[in-house]
Amino acid sequence: MKKILVLHGPNLNMLGTREPEKYGKTTLADINNMLEDLAKELNVTIETFQSNSEGELVTKIQQAYGMFDGILINPAAYTHTSVALRDALLSVNVPTVEVHISNIHTREEFRQKSFIAGVSVGQISGFKHNSYLLGLRALTDYLYCS
Amino acid sequence: MKKILVLHGPNLNMLGTREPEKYGKTTLADINNMLEDLAKELNVTIETFQSNSEGELVTKIQQAYGMFDGILINPAAYTHTSVALRDALLSVNVPTVEVHISNIHTREEFRQKSFIAGVSVGQISGFKHNSYLLGLRALTDYLYCS
Amino acid sequence: MKKILVLHGPNLNMLGTREPEKYGKTTLADINNMLEDLAKELNVTIETFQSNSEGELVTKIQQAYGMFDGILINPAAYTHTSVALRDALLSVNVPTVEVHISNIHTREEFRQKSFIAGVSVGQISGFKHNSYLLGLRALTDYLYCS
Amino acid sequence: MKKILVLHGPNLNMLGTREPEKYGKTTLADINNMLEDLAKELNVTIETFQSNSEGELVTKIQQAYGMFDGILINPAAYTHTSVALRDALLSVNVPTVEVHISNIHTREEFRQKSFIAGVSVGQISGFKHNSYLLGLRALTDYLYCS
Amino acid sequence: MKKILVLHGPNLNMLGTREPEKYGKTTLADINNMLEDLAKELNVTIETFQSNSEGELVTKIQQAYGMFDGILINPAAYTHTSVALRDALLSVNVPTVEVHISNIHTREEFRQKSFIAGVSVGQISGFKHNSYLLGLRALTDYLYCS
Amino acid sequence: MKKILVLHGPNLNMLGTREPEKYGKTTLADINNMLEDLAKELNVTIETFQSNSEGELVTKIQQAYGMFDGILINPAAYTHTSVALRDALLSVNVPTVEVHISNIHTREEFRQKSFIAGVSVGQISGFKHNSYLLGLRALTDYLYCS
Amino acid sequence: MKKILVLHGPNLNMLGTREPEKYGKTTLADINNMLEDLAKELNVTIETFQSNSEGELVTKIQQAYGMFDGILINPAAYTHTSVALRDALLSVNVPTVEVHISNIHTREEFRQKSFIAGVSVGQISGFKHNSYLLGLRALTDYLYCS
Amino acid sequence: MKKILVLHGPNLNMLGTREPEKYGKTTLADINNMLEDLAKELNVTIETFQSNSEGELVTKIQQAYGMFDGILINPAAYTHTSVALRDALLSVNVPTVEVHISNIHTREEFRQKSFIAGVSVGQISGFKHNSYLLGLRALTDYLYCS
Amino acid sequence: MKKILVLHGPNLNMLGTREPEKYGKTTLADINNMLEDLAKELNVTIETFQSNSEGELVTKIQQAYGMFDGILINPAAYTHTSVALRDALLSVNVPTVEVHISNIHTREEFRQKSFIAGVSVGQISGFKHNSYLLGLRALTDYLYCS
Amino acid sequence: MKKILVLHGPNLNMLGTREPEKYGKTTLADINNMLEDLAKELNVTIETFQSNSEGELVTKIQQAYGMFDGILINPAAYTHTSVALRDALLSVNVPTVEVHISNIHTREEFRQKSFIAGVSVGQISGFKHNSYLLGLRALTDYLYCS
Amino acid sequence: MKKILVLHGPNLNMLGTREPEKYGKTTLADINNMLEDLAKELNVTIETFQSNSEGELVTKIQQAYGMFDGILINPAAYTHTSVALRDALLSVNVPTVEVHISNIHTREEFRQKSFIAGVSVGQISGFKHNSYLLGLRALTDYLYCS
Amino acid sequence: MKKILVLHGPNLNMLGTREPEKYGKTTLADINNMLEDLAKELNVTIETFQSNSEGELVTKIQQAYGMFDGILINPAAYTHTSVALRDALLSVNVPTVEVHISNIHTREEFRQKSFIAGVSVGQISGFKHNSYLLGLRALTDYLYCS
Repeated sequence: MKKILVLHGPNLNMLGTREPEKYGKTTLADINNMLEDLAKELNVTIETFQSNSEGELVTKIQQAYGMFDGILINPAAYTHTSVALRDALLSVNVPTVEVHISNIHTREEFRQKSFIAGVSVGQISGFKHNSYLLGLRALTDYLYCS
Repeated sequence: MKKILVLHGPNLNMLGTREPEKYGKTTLADINNMLEDLAKELNVTIETFQSNSEGELVTKIQQAYGMFDGILINPAAYTHTSVALRDALLSVNVPTVEVHISNIHTREEFRQKSFIAGVSVGQISGFKHNSYLLGLRALTDYLYCS
Repeated sequence: MKKILVLHGPNLNMLGTREPEKYGKTTLADINNMLEDLAKELNVTIETFQSNSEGELVTKIQQAYGMFDGILINPAAYTHTSVALRDALLSVNVPTVEVHISNIHTREEFRQKSFIAGVSVGQISGFKHNSYLLGLRALTDYLYCS
Repeated sequence: MKKILVLHGPNLNMLGTREPEKYGKTTLADINNMLEDLAKELNVTIETFQSNSEGELVTKIQQAYGMFDGILINPAAYTHTSVALRDALLSVNVPTVEVHISNIHTREEFRQKSFIAGVSVGQISGFKHNSYLLGLRALTDYLYCS
Repeated sequence: MKKILVLHGPNLNMLGTREPEKYGKTTLADINNMLEDLAKELNVTIETFQSNSEGELVTKIQQAYGMFDGILINPAAYTHTSVALRDALLSVNVPTVEVHISNIHTREEFRQKSFIAGVSVGQISGFKHNSYLLGLRALTDYLYCS
Repeated sequence: MKKILVLHGPNLNMLGTREPEKYGKTTLADINNMLEDLAKELNVTIETFQSNSEGELVTKIQQAYGMFDGILINPAAYTHTSVALRDALLSVNVPTVEVHISNIHTREEFRQKSFIAGVSVGQISGFKHNSYLLGLRALTDYLYCS
Repeated sequence: MKKILVLHGPNLNMLGTREPEKYGKTTLADINNMLEDLAKELNVTIETFQSNSEGELVTKIQQAYGMFDGILINPAAYTHTSVALRDALLSVNVPTVEVHISNIHTREEFRQKSFIAGVSVGQISGFKHNSYLLGLRALTDYLYCS
Repeated sequence: MKKILVLHGPNLNMLGTREPEKYGKTTLADINNMLEDLAKELNVTIETFQSNSEGELVTKIQQAYGMFDGILINPAAYTHTSVALRDALLSVNVPTVEVHISNIHTREEFRQKSFIAGVSVGQISGFKHNSYLLGLRALTDYLYCS
Repeated sequence: MKKILVLHGPNLNMLGTREPEKYGKTTLADINNMLEDLAKELNVTIETFQSNSEGELVTKIQQAYGMFDGILINPAAYTHTSVALRDALLSVNVPTVEVHISNIHTREEFRQKSFIAGVSVGQISGFKHNSYLLGLRALTDYLYCS
Repeated sequence: MKKILVLHGPNLNMLGTREPEKYGKTTLADINNMLEDLAKELNVTIETFQSNSEGELVTKIQQAYGMFDGILINPAAYTHTSVALRDALLSVNVPTVEVHISNIHTREEFRQKSFIAGVSVGQISGFKHNSYLLGLRALTDYLYCS
Repeated sequence: MKKILVLHGPNLNMLGTREPEKYGKTTLADINNMLEDLAKELNVTIETFQSNSEGELVTKIQQAYGMFDGILINPAAYTHTSVALRDALLSVNVPTVEVHISNIHTREEFRQKSFIAGVSVGQISGFKHNSYLLGLRALTDYLYCS
Repeated sequence: MKKILVLHGPNLNMLGTREPEKYGKTTLADINNMLEDLAKELNVTIETFQSNSEGELVTKIQQAYGMFDGILINPAAYTHTSVALRDALLSVNVPTVEVHISNIHTREEFRQKSFIAGVSVGQISGFKHNSYLLGLRALTDYLYCS
């Protein structure tokens, strides 16, 4: 049974609290629950982790080495600014899927560059909490079929 | 029952013929069959259309007005060069999901700009033929839940 | 009596259908009728043609060579992306006036570059369907007075 | 009866004196006369004003507030350099049409940016003195029909 | 005996009609005849095709797969704007030589970028109709010697 | 007792007349009165001056040489376009504080470059009429404490 | 009585230790004391917090939600690199004033872009420790008067 | 005897007052006297004019039409921002020499673009007041020898 | 005896684990041992510290103030994104040498900008673990000879 | 009989020594022999010259003035950096054909700009040693037919 | 008596031979003679040197160290490409005046950047051979008066 | 015993003569002596060569082919402008280390691009003459250990 690490970047702990027009009303706990349910259906196990700290996310990715078969990550703000996250993913070389709640390609210019895309299998962007569920499907398919 | 128009841009009729390392071995007919199967499971109907011609794709999108509830599009090369496709989608205002077989965010610089993203619900990129299946799920969820 | 070819680019057949705040409620047929009326008043004859296909527009322009005295064109989306239209106009060298329904200089950055301007007498932008009528006057004056 | 302020920017007082290949032989007085004639035909009144001074043009625009129904402006060189003219038009919010004698979109790179376009109804460029007459028609139509 | 597909892009059907200082007086039929003559001398067969439509050119390239040993292409205006042509050439992987009648490196800035160069053996630019003849020699040598 | 010259750039005489959501309802006279009141409290004297003319503002700054201890300036539109104002401030070398009613760093791209910042003690931006009062405090503190 | 969170970004704990010509001799404790004194005068309460960690600052901002009426922030180096701080401010939507000890608009190019400005009421830059005091006044006025 | 108009742009009336390390101690009156002396030696007559106003300089240039044989101009700050001065020089077409007291090519980036260079015979930059004297020689030689 | 702080940035704790073709097989512990040996030979003492957290690295640098004579730093990913590290080095003003395991000047564009270079004595890049040893020599020589 | 100067730029004397995948195994002597053979066939005479020195190439071009009817040049690295070669070709005005062994349009960004193209009849790029032979044909045709 | 080294860059030995509309008919020998005559009048001695080789010009500048009081240089094409010439002038620190025969500020974009300007007293551009004479005057005045 | 070619670029023969604050007082002969001493210690032999001529440096590199095991190069000004040096290093494929006396990453923008870095093992920059000694160690280690 494949093991998947689900990483939530900065400010995602605030989901469902404010700006519903951009991010929806669903909380991060809701998303984690939905992911758990889908994981059962897809026959994988998941572990979830959220941090506002770039360094903690880097460390968590490093710990995935040899422990997880795949990483599902919403790097949030660090998508656009963190070479360290990119290097962490490079250093563990675990298949990674990048998801975004809003469609980053329609927002500010600075949100349209992703340091993570270059080290990911693929990217899913714009489907609110569903981006995570689609991402888990995509990653599972990738792990079992590639 | 929601009706979805599936559009395949230029050169996608060549899928499965060459460059499997980039696009996979699956042919366009295979993809259309898989989409049909999934459509049944999701309780939607689909119509598929491929063209190498920007003008024909524009016309097809226009005909979707009042006829389809959603559009699933892989604009291929026209993603990066066609303002006309963007304007067609604007003119019909049918919810659209953009998919790409390869991860466009890791290819040539000119492939990283999408004229379609700005008028789409979301974008799925990099999961080979699975991008289409994920896209159909994403669009169906959007149509029933938004 | 001068003969003028009126060309409508992609998606203009959808005029009056959607997004009235940007393009007005007037349909393309309405515009053609108004142009016919004005043509009579100005003592010129017009022929109108719309296409969503860049290639068809190129071919139509080529056919104007030796057949028409002037071209009134709303290149729509192809304004910003078509070197082929520019070259077609260059190849026939028929005096051309470029018109736009919305003020392209106030829209997205990519709409502010025109490949057509460099081969036109002048440009009229922002007056909804009236842009066409002003353009027909401008072209007629140019043909009789230059 | 609608009242329209016609503003001529720097160096337009030199019209008809030199460089006829770019600007025509018509003097500014000729243009003002033609505008007067057309105004009568269109049933509007006009007042004309020329200045080489950015500050005087700003002040004149401010005075239009509550006094004029529309502004027809050829900002000439200030088109490309004056944020102050843009702010003046913003501050009075009188419908404005921007005209240019030559086709600015075919001249030097620095002439292709207009600070005025963003606060205007539309732009007419390239028809020599006729740009003014077309502009007066466009503005009158706008004032009576919008 | 090697088979070569000769493709002429948009507006090349107008060759010899206008702007001789840029493109020469030779018509496209003349060029095709000269190519036929040279083909006989070089012991290859050619088929020629011209279109103003990007989509038709894409389709023609696709049909070359398994049918032709090489492609000689003057993409004309599509050189600078068509990712679809590039992708078509990528998808068939037939050795391609790119030719231009005028020296594109000395014309407008936007003509100096070629989407085709990246998928071609080489480029010949600036020798009027002779560019085609040199290109046919270059391609033939490449096919027999590489 | 320190003497401070307060300069208001183009269109600030229109304050309180229009666009209250951006600039507030307070008129320039109101601001000058508030500045007078605060000046008394801070034990400085002020002189105020508004002009729409870049040249007049330059001349006024030159006259400050040897006459004023500090300059409080809202350069408005000239912030972004006037090297002449910058040079005038350079030539008199009187400590200067730059204020803006709206937060220029959140408006159009062209409003985010300030030619004045490079020759000022500091900048205060975004607090409506309060920007002036904060600026007067800042300048007074600077003059008495630096 | 309004409650204000005062945030100091990275390296501000070193204030008064080195580089007095750029940042002054005042220590961060001095600034906090001065802010306390002014807060009493203005009838608000403040809480101060300094961190070198982007993640800790993000978390502190999140905790302000529902607890503070305003945020006074000197983001220091993170001004120019942290989308996460911007998103944290977006997520809590508490009125924020941005202050800088030195005039960032006169320093290195990379210091002239602020990710924080776009989500702040206003910005005060260049008045050494006084920037904080002016910022506290500006924020208090904003909270009581807006 | 050739007549030459000497134009001094904004802030040059402050010469000799401040910043001698950049502009020297010589006043504008000194420079005008030196120019008068050299004019006698070179057998030309000069008239000098200084203004801080772009509009006044434009008007003065216009008045040179038919009255002067050459223009010697130090456009100062307007060098880099005034299209109006460029157009004024274009409109009168009087041979012009551009001079600068400091070497503009070694100062801030924005001082290295000259709108005036494109309409001048030549440029002399960096020799303090001597730039004017060299410019007068250059212009006189040009007028008598070209 | 000079004291040197050796700082290792994010992901360097993974050295020797993966991607040997880019970073070599040597672990961070190996490097620290080699540095200890060389330190003895050079008669300096070293303390080593690794962190994935930008904030911790900033704090460690601050603590070097008055405690260490030099800093040897491999900022890894933070080289390209951290103004905070630059400011920390600025604030303590301890001589710093920057080292990189791979030659950053031959990798992705975004790795070729260093925020650290501007505040360092020098940079050594591309010699795998030997970059550290060369850096320690360089720093020691600098401290004893400058 | 036309006389043609064949110029080989820097490092071309190393041809056939290394990197055969980019430049082929043929040596420069081989190429010169092939050119001699083709020259006889085409009834022209050639002189060949190679230098690693920009200055020597400039001088050789100058000596072609009045001595040669055409220049066939492979400027190699100087293609992208030498304005002096461009000026030398401008100064002698001898018809020039530019050739490149590899397809420069598919290599590093800095190899895609040619200072030579702007002063050449045409460019041939990518056909290994055959580029020279095609170039000699092209130049000969040009000299006899233009 | 001051000694001045006059340096002529690449292709200036061709002066008077071709392109008189850009460079005049005067030969380099003529210019040297005129400079000799003027040197006598100004009471300085000159030595002249021309080379097409960047390296030789560098070496000649180095030899000026301690031997010449000033350098008058027309770097021609090397103006825009040679950091080596800039470094040579930096290394000898002899006052230098840069001259150009044509007005480089009105030619191709790449001719508008000068690596020499940053290490020169001033620049004279556009007065044909007279640029040299003006430059000799400028340098002499600088040497005797600064 | 490994043989190493030490190359010094333009103006390095002036070392120790001027600008000691940037390059130190050590002469090139001193550096060569220090390198000789270190070479003995490291058990390698060196040959040194300096030239101001790009072409001579290219030729010297070519001669290293088969004669030297490594190249230690300070390309000086040619670092930033010479594609020919890059191609020479490419053509001989001898392991190369690039050194710079000053820290090029802290100097003018144009000095921060290196054409040499892309073909070197690594780069050492900023340690004055010690850069050479560190470079010799780095290259020796590379040759014996890689």
